[in-house]
Formats: sequence, structure tokens, C-alpha cells
Amino acid sequence: MADETTDHDDETALPVVRMRRPRWGDPGAPAELPAAAAALVGAGVGATDVVDPDDVALPAPAVPDAARAALTDLLGSGHVTDDRRERIDHTRGYSTPDILALRHGDGSDAPDLVVTPGSHDDVLGILTICAEHRVAVVPFTGGTSVVGGLAPQRDGFSGVVSVDMGRLDRLVAVDEISRTATLQAGLRGVRAEELLRAKGYTLGHFPQSYEGAGIGGYAATRSAGQSSAGYGRFDEMVEHIVLATPRGTVEVGTAPRSAAGPDLRQLLLGSEGVFGIITEVTVRVRPAPTHRIFEGWRFDDFDSGAAALRALAQDGPMPTVLRLSDEVETSINLADPGELGVDAGGCLVVVGYEGRDDEVQRRRAAVTDALRAAGGVSAGTEPGEAWRTGRFRAPYLRDPLLDAGVLVETLETVTFWSRLNDVKAAVTAALTDALTDQGTPPLVMCHISHVYASGASLYFTVVCPQADDPIAQWSAAKSAANTAIRQAGASITHHHGVGRDHRDGYHDEIGNLALDALRAVKHTLDPEGVCNPGVLI
Amino acid sequence: MADETTDHDDETALPVVRMRRPRWGDPGAPAELPAAAAALVGAGVGATDVVDPDDVALPAPAVPDAARAALTDLLGSGHVTDDRRERIDHTRGYSTPDILALRHGDGSDAPDLVVTPGSHDDVLGILTICAEHRVAVVPFTGGTSVVGGLAPQRDGFSGVVSVDMGRLDRLVAVDEISRTATLQAGLRGVRAEELLRAKGYTLGHFPQSYEGAGIGGYAATRSAGQSSAGYGRFDEMVEHIVLATPRGTVEVGTAPRSAAGPDLRQLLLGSEGVFGIITEVTVRVRPAPTHRIFEGWRFDDFDSGAAALRALAQDGPMPTVLRLSDEVETSINLADPGELGVDAGGCLVVVGYEGRDDEVQRRRAAVTDALRAAGGVSAGTEPGEAWRTGRFRAPYLRDPLLDAGVLVETLETVTFWSRLNDVKAAVTAALTDALTDQGTPPLVMCHISHVYASGASLYFTVVCPQADDPIAQWSAAKSAANTAIRQAGASITHHHGVGRDHRDGYHDEIGNLALDALRAVKHTLDPEGVCNPGVLI
Repeated sequence: MADETTDHDDETALPVVRMRRPRWGDPGAPAELPAAAAALVGAGVGATDVVDPDDVALPAPAVPDAARAALTDLLGSGHVTDDRRERIDHTRGYSTPDILALRHGDGSDAPDLVVTPGSHDDVLGILTICAEHRVAVVPFTGGTSVVGGLAPQRDGFSGVVSVDMGRLDRLVAVDEISRTATLQAGLRGVRAEELLRAKGYTLGHFPQSYEGAGIGGYAATRSAGQSSAGYGRFDEMVEHIVLATPRGTVEVGTAPRSAAGPDLRQLLLGSEGVFGIITEVTVRVRPAPTHRIFEGWRFDDFDSGAAALRALAQDGPMPTVLRLSDEVETSINLADPGELGVDAGGCLVVVGYEGRDDEVQRRRAAVTDALRAAGGVSAGTEPGEAWRTGRFRAPYLRDPLLDAGVLVETLETVTFWSRLNDVKAAVTAALTDALTDQGTPPLVMCHISHVYASGASLYFTVVCPQADDPIAQWSAAKSAANTAIRQAGASITHHHGVGRDHRDGYHDEIGNLALDALRAVKHTLDPEGVCNPGVLI
Repeated sequence: MADETTDHDDETALPVVRMRRPRWGDPGAPAELPAAAAALVGAGVGATDVVDPDDVALPAPAVPDAARAALTDLLGSGHVTDDRRERIDHTRGYSTPDILALRHGDGSDAPDLVVTPGSHDDVLGILTICAEHRVAVVPFTGGTSVVGGLAPQRDGFSGVVSVDMGRLDRLVAVDEISRTATLQAGLRGVRAEELLRAKGYTLGHFPQSYEGAGIGGYAATRSAGQSSAGYGRFDEMVEHIVLATPRGTVEVGTAPRSAAGPDLRQLLLGSEGVFGIITEVTVRVRPAPTHRIFEGWRFDDFDSGAAALRALAQDGPMPTVLRLSDEVETSINLADPGELGVDAGGCLVVVGYEGRDDEVQRRRAAVTDALRAAGGVSAGTEPGEAWRTGRFRAPYLRDPLLDAGVLVETLETVTFWSRLNDVKAAVTAALTDALTDQGTPPLVMCHISHVYASGASLYFTVVCPQADDPIAQWSAAKSAANTAIRQAGASITHHHGVGRDHRDGYHDEIGNLALDALRAVKHTLDPEGVCNPGVLI
């Protein structure tokens, strides 16, 4: 039983990957399609062309000379670049349409310049210069947005600057009494975890983008990690935020909780760069786990599995990781691409426990009782360990699938338990119909990966043959899914964020008056409107 | 052992008290000073005069006739009144200065009219009329603010209307699958609990103002109840909010949690009526507890007690109620006024468990281990039960103390664990010095009543002889405490809110830019600025 973490400490053993667009992961070690997956997607699909990076069409650099000179004065010439490869590597994010666009040679959303500030004051200076010259500013940490959060509008601006926060990568302080850590926004998730583990702590935040994403992105997009059942969402971890705006610095978060007005941390978390750039956060940390067990449970169907998850979320106790794959996803077993196509029937629940030995044992005993009472049958640790060790691999699978002419994309939502089945059915039908109508009937898989007392997330993975114009193909499917999500009363996103892709759904979700209020906040902090324009609001 | 709630279900057995100013509680059953308390405050203090309500000076009614006519058209004449006693009963809140002002005959903050809407649309209509005629609007549920949240600025307005939400008192719906309940804002806490218990649920929100306060006030002030360790703060319970503003309706909260932009619920919670009036909230509910145990633990001193609370907050598990009185408060034993002066030494921790039988036993066993490991000694159930049964009594004690010439007031703050002792020392010194300088050396007691992984609240109770001008006397002490709180880096309030009394400290806490952002939100939703002007921002 894999209950000693010493030899399994994969989160910190992972390298900080410097990805190169369009592919996910280390460009020196391209992922290959597992044989089982190749067999599944099978005949009838062929390799698709990929435009060489040297041939990607980029906009002519448009930042005014005076702005560029001022940025160079501020940062030094080594931290202001219009290098072609840097511009490409800061173009958009990692949604399937983003990847496809670059594969097709479309670099129209590339920034004109990439700048790398070395301090909070540098960021303030960049924002002042860009506001003065009406240059759009895109904050960049890991670059892993899948909702168009890194593709600002060019119209009405004299250019676009990507602010790569990579130099702001320090663990500033650990308060061992309060169990908090102050992290700079450019710190990548893997490196943050490594620095914290060296002091005996963990952040416990492991989104699927973990190998790429960074602290600033976690905060700006209200990220939720795979261990949210145990460690909470990123927005629940944040105690203090430092935001640089064109008008100066905003600092919020005086105490863990307070009745001193609205909780302004929750106004900045999820603001996706439109109010300014988050440069530092103080977050809750926990002692690094010494013990870990991941295991699988089988339920007859999605409904009985969801009822079991709901019982744990409402009556406790909660494990560290809690997920339920529906019948389709269970049969495909995406969690373990090497074993694609192995179908043990029913629905798989993955349950993970991390912590001190006694705590792991105590929670596991109580959760086991609850799962058994809900009709679950233990499947042992193998499915749990398989999920755990493979959990950051899914994004790697997308590139070879695209290479083979297979379209694969994901989307997610969240709703209350009482609406969960209706939302799942509506979104599945919308995706299936929209793609079948285009002659490319899809496989639609779904899982619950984040549970709350009152509801849960639903995460959909869609696989189908690529049509001639796969971006338009997916756009129609995504639009149908968004409509279905909103009509069913669910949120337009659970953890991917709004960006540009979810903007219409987001506006429908919050309504005109709330949108006006957010625009008023933006106008106050960013009067020239240069901060990530076109994103969110 | 009092572990069956059937005979001890005091929260729902309490009547909904219709208080009459200036005194707290049922005017037909005035509280008397327990003999032990009378002995403690002892010789040298005498009865103080109280101006008869008929002699309280009220401002001449100032709402324009056209506005009054429009309100009467909208609501009916039975729901628009300038009755003298109604105006007095809607004057300010229940801080000691509020009580003293009315005792001294000062009704200058009285509203001109009291209106009672019967629906959300009525509230929208009231706001439209008041915006048109520049009449200030004060939302009123229980009227128990202790920070000046019900005393809007008159300057610049043609009058003041108090919007008493008492008719909006329905439990609208219970979603048993999602475990949520939709409550109208005028529902009083006691009545909400009664309605939920009839369906097998509890809200679990028991602030000390429980007998007076209501749902809208809980939401608008970001209230925290005495059982926050187990049930959470009110702002953590809220899933959905309906807000009436002069520009229309804002509804926020589509799902339990989401990455769809900032969490706008947390922008409305704590907004204290300045953006509009909350008319309805949907909140998480839990199964009503079937078992309950409250008990006491002794620690040698405050530091060791605080360390024990911190261990529970950081490593779990948490009981339902968790409080620590410092040495002074323990010696006075305010929790049990009948036993004032009984000093068992050290510091008292009160721990309460509520829930299912097995859950209570399991958590109690684990918490007991942790408290013992931290140096605690069990004091049995008697101190716990004494606290539980007396927990809503402290506000009743204030009136007879004021009658006897004793000034008593409370204030609270919250900070991170690493600053807790410094904040406690600084606030205690500030209060002690400011009152000693005036020739009225105080007794300053303190307790922790709300704990978080990263910090805790500090609640101070101050008792001293009244000076000739007790309002000025307290104002000096309060000002010194506010300065000390902010200088020590703590929040200006933990659960009392900002109102008018904490406005300066609040502005210092959030800074000019964040204040500008909040003002921009207000200006968007309330362009005429009629919503609770002068409060918060």
C-alpha cells in the first residue's frame, strides 16, 4: 500500500517545464499517443499539418517607440524583447482552438513586446507607461489559460505588451505560527511546492496545469486544484493580495476573516488581469503530508456515485481528493491513458488521503464506512494510484491526438446538487447534437472533480474526428454547450475562468447591473482601460 | 450529561423579542442586575437619569410631501408612519453610546418615516421614490447594530426613511438535495431557526444579538455567530443574494463556487446597505442536531489556551463552539452573571459539540485528545452548560449597569496568530490608558470566540465608572483602541461591522484606491447616493 510519501512525492519531483507553443510540455520530449488510444481513435483519421514556428504570421510590432524606450529605461534592454520566438511563446494559451490556431500559422494575437519586470515597482512602472501610451497589457505567469485569457483585444490600442512575471519567483516569507506563506506571482506552481516542502509545508494546489501554471494565474483565475476537497480552492487559501494598477498599489486582506466591509480579496481573485496585475499573495499553507493513500471505488452508475460524493460533502468527513467518472469516462479510463479501453463497468470513484498517519487512517476509516453505506465497492489502491501518477498527463495526450486528426477538448461547469443531473444531460446533449450535426459524432465523457456541501463541478471531455475547419467545428459545439449551461442555470465555468471565450455567458450570468459595477471598478483602477482589454468584462 | 437536545433546545424556544429602545430585550421584563454584579461594581456609583421616551427630542419630519404621498400610494397608509414611538424605536442601534444618547433624550438620528415593504418590488419602488426625492434610506431588520450602521447622514438629503423589512419574513423554499434554504431578509434569526427546525434543519447562526437580529442584517454586516467553528460565518453560508438597488435588481450566486469572475456575493456581503437593500438570501443549512455537549476546559494562562485553540484550528478537528476567556474574563465569569466573581484561576475554554450522536462522540474524542495534549484540564460540563444557557444574556446586563452608573461596552478585532498577543496587549493598554487618564480606570476583559487556521478574533469587554459625559468618555477610549488596532496591523472589526463608528479605521485598512473602487460600485448602483449615506464609505 502506497502510504509513505517519501518515494512517491511526485508533485515536487516534477521539473518546472518551459513549454514551447503550440505543444504542451517539454518540447525536448514530445508525448506519443499510447497504442490503446491510437487503436481507439483508429482508422479514418490521418496526420494533420503543423505550420513551422518560423512561418507563423505575426502582427507587425506596433508599440510606439516612446513607450518601448520608456520600458527599456525602466527594465533594461535585457528585459524588453520583440524576439519572434518569445512573441509566439506568449501568444494565447492552451485551449484546443489556441493550439490549432498556432498549428495553422495564425499568430495574430501575439504580443508586440514581452517584458520581464523584476519587482512590484517595475510592474507599477510598466502599467504607468502603458497607460500613458495606450498599450494593452497582458499579465503572463504560466500561459496555460484555456479560455482566451491571454488574448486581449488590439482594437483601440497602440500595441500589446505581455508582462511575463517569471523573474518575480521568490518565496518571500513563511509565517510558521499563522501557517501562511508569501509568494511572488511569477512563482510557478511546481517551484512554489518545492520551496515550501523544503520548509516542511505544502500549498496543496494541484490543478491539471500544475506543470505550467503559476501563482499569479492561480489567483487571477480563481483556480481550483485536484486536491480541493482536502486543501480547498486557491481562492480559499488567499489571505492577502498585492495588486499593481495603473493608479498605484492596492493591498487587501488584513486578517483571515473580517466584517470590515466587502471581502475585497474576492473582488480581485478572478479579476483576470482587468484591474491590474497581482504581484504577490499570502496564502495558507499546511504541513507537508507524511502519508498518502489513493484508492478506487466502484459504483453501479453515476447517480449512485454522485449520491455518495454528496453524502461526504454534506456530512463529512472529506478525503483530500474525491472524483467520480461517469460510465463513459470510466469505460475509456482517461485517467490512465496506457490502459485506454479497459472497461470494468459502472463508475469509478477515486479517493485520495494525505496527511499525518493517524489523520489519514482516521479519515479513511470514516470515508470507507460512508462509501460502503452508499453502495460503493472497493477497487483497491491500483485505480487510485494509476490516477495519481497519471493525473498531469492528460494535456500531453492532446497534441498527438490532434496530430492524428482527432479533436479533443474539455469544458466544465458547476451547479447545485439538485440540478446536477439536468445540467449533465443538457450539456451532453448539446455537445453531441452540435458535433453530430457537423458529421463528427463525438464521445462525451464527464466527471465530478470538485464537491461542495451544496453542489459540484461537472467536467466534460469531448473527442471526435476533426472536420476541415476544426476551430469552427469546436466553436459551434462550445457555443451550444455554453447555451445549455446557462439555460440550465449553471455557472459558465467552474475553474477555467472567463477570458474572452466565456464572456457572453458570464455577462448573462451576472446581469447588466453587476457588470456595470465591475466596469466601474475597472474604470477606477485602470482609467485608460489598458489592463487585459476584452477579457472578462 | 446534557447530550440530548430535546429538552435543551433553547435557540428555538426563545421568543422573537420586539425590543423597545433604549433597553435591550422585552420591555415587559426588564433585566435586573444580579447581586454578585451589583456587589462587584459596588459603592460609589449611583443611578443615572433616563429621559422618558415622550421627552426625547426628535427632528421635525422632513420627507417631502410628494415623496411621502408616493410611498403611501405604493405601500398603503398602514405601511408608512411617522408615529413618534416608531421613529424612536428605529433610531440608531444598540451600542452603548446609542443607548446613552437616547437615555439622554437625544433622538437627532431618528428617521422621519418608517416604511414596511411587503415585497421585493416594494423595496425597489421605495428606492426609486427616495432616489427621485433625495431621501436617505436606512435598511432595518433587527436594529441591533453596535457601530452606527443605522444612523445615516442627514446633511444633503431631504429626509430619512427607515425601511423596516419585518413583513418580508418568509422561509421561501428549502432545497433538501442541495441543503439550502431561501430566506427573506426581514426574517428574524429566532424565527428563521424555528421555521428551519420544523423541517429538520438548522442554520446554526447564533450571534449574541440572536434574539434581536435578522437575516438581512446578518448578510449586510458579514455576521459571525457563536457557533462559527462548526457552522461557519454567515458570509460562508450564503449561496445566492437578491439585492434591490435604485437602478434595479442585482442577483448573484449561480453555484456554490465558480471561477466566473470575482465572487460578487462577497462584494454584497458586508456592504451595509450602501449599494441597496438585500431582500432575500439562499443559505446553506444543515440537519438539526440531535445531540449536544458543552463543556469547560482550564488552561494555566491565555497563551497556552490560545495555543490549544490554534492547534485545533490548524490541525482539526473543530468542535461546534470554541472560545477562550483570558485571565481577567475568566475571573469575572461574565458568561454566568449569576456567578460573577467566582474565580477558579487560569483561563476557561468553552467547547461545544452539536450534531448526530456518533459525530459528536467522534469529534469530542479527538478534540479532547488535542486539548489534553496542549495542557488543558477538563472542567466538566457545568462551565460549558452555564455558558450555553447564559450566552444571550450579556446584552441584558448592560442596561442595569448603566442604570447603576457603570459604563460597559465591547469591541472586537481579528488578526493572524503571529500577531495575536501584540494586538491583545496593545488594545488592552490603549483602553486602560485612555480611561485611566479620565479618572475612570477600567477592567478590560478579552476572549477569543472565532478561530481560523491563520488567526483568531479578539473580543474586549470594558467596564468602568461612568464619567459626567459618558459618550465623550467612551469615544476617547474607543478612538484609542481603534488606533491601537490599526497600528498593530489588525482589522478594525471582526463581526460588528463598520457603520459610521469604524469608518476612519476601515478607510485606513483598505486604502484610498480600494475605497475609490467601492465608491464607484456605489455610484453605479445608487447614483443619487441615497442608500445608507455616511455608512461604510
